[in-house]
Amino acid sequence: MKYSFFAVFAFAALFNMGCKEPVSTKATDGETNAIFPKGKLGPAANFTGKAWNTDLVANDTRYNTVVGNVYFEPGARSNWHIHPAGQILIITDGVGYHQIKGQPRQTIKKGDVVKCPPNVMHWHGASPDTGLQQLYIVPNTEKGIVKWLHPVSNEEYNNSK
Amino acid sequence: MKYSFFAVFAFAALFNMGCKEPVSTKATDGETNAIFPKGKLGPAANFTGKAWNTDLVANDTRYNTVVGNVYFEPGARSNWHIHPAGQILIITDGVGYHQIKGQPRQTIKKGDVVKCPPNVMHWHGASPDTGLQQLYIVPNTEKGIVKWLHPVSNEEYNNSK
Repeated sequence: MKYSFFAVFAFAALFNMGCKEPVSTKATDGETNAIFPKGKLGPAANFTGKAWNTDLVANDTRYNTVVGNVYFEPGARSNWHIHPAGQILIITDGVGYHQIKGQPRQTIKKGDVVKCPPNVMHWHGASPDTGLQQLYIVPNTEKGIVKWLHPVSNEEYNNSK
Repeated sequence: MKYSFFAVFAFAALFNMGCKEPVSTKATDGETNAIFPKGKLGPAANFTGKAWNTDLVANDTRYNTVVGNVYFEPGARSNWHIHPAGQILIITDGVGYHQIKGQPRQTIKKGDVVKCPPNVMHWHGASPDTGLQQLYIVPNTEKGIVKWLHPVSNEEYNNSK
């Protein structure tokens, strides 16, 4: 009986170890424990793969700011695009990429903040194996919100330089 | 021996049940699995209890936007204050309160978005038992960022009307 009680606690400890809370700021898969609803699928005209959008703050003349959340499934990314007043990205989970035209592709992950200046071409999306949760903030919307351009090719997506 | 094996699995199942992944948008304690570092303790002149601030986007003339994260420990709250251009709060975890002067106190939780108009007195903070993680966005900073006022009394904090 003594042995069986030891086994009980050994087993229980083993199960408990396997599901400890993740370490702070460690990226997960981007989908588990999401903050916002998954939202609506972004149009194929502007995205490669599946990118899900939830509007959080609609444009108005009081705040002049648009805020939303995008969940990019693994491998999904935006087309190249331009924000006339720039954009701020807050990465809340997962792992992805951000690239400004003419600069190296950056890897971005949970806790990162990315600023893209006004009138600069950029794209963002998930890594091939892990999704990405990102809040986007478009400030000064009186200057415009977004101008969509052409898709990011597989060569551009995979090229780290 | 048969009994002891049953006990092993019953115990293991019990431990495993207690640590399932949280359901999407269900608030946790606000501190576990935080997205951002805890940051710096907010000054006692502007906060009651412990509120930890991490600056994410500093003010500049390009974005005219300030972004940061505050973790309010249970019971902690800001003083009453005014934003000349308003403020947007994005609640990423936990449970708390937001109140605009003259309006009922709102309960806010993971996934909520709160807008406070320009030049209106408000306060925000954690619930008594659960902390709050909130991103703040201050747009149009050319109009000003924040004007701090007096503390929120215990009576105001506890009064839900």
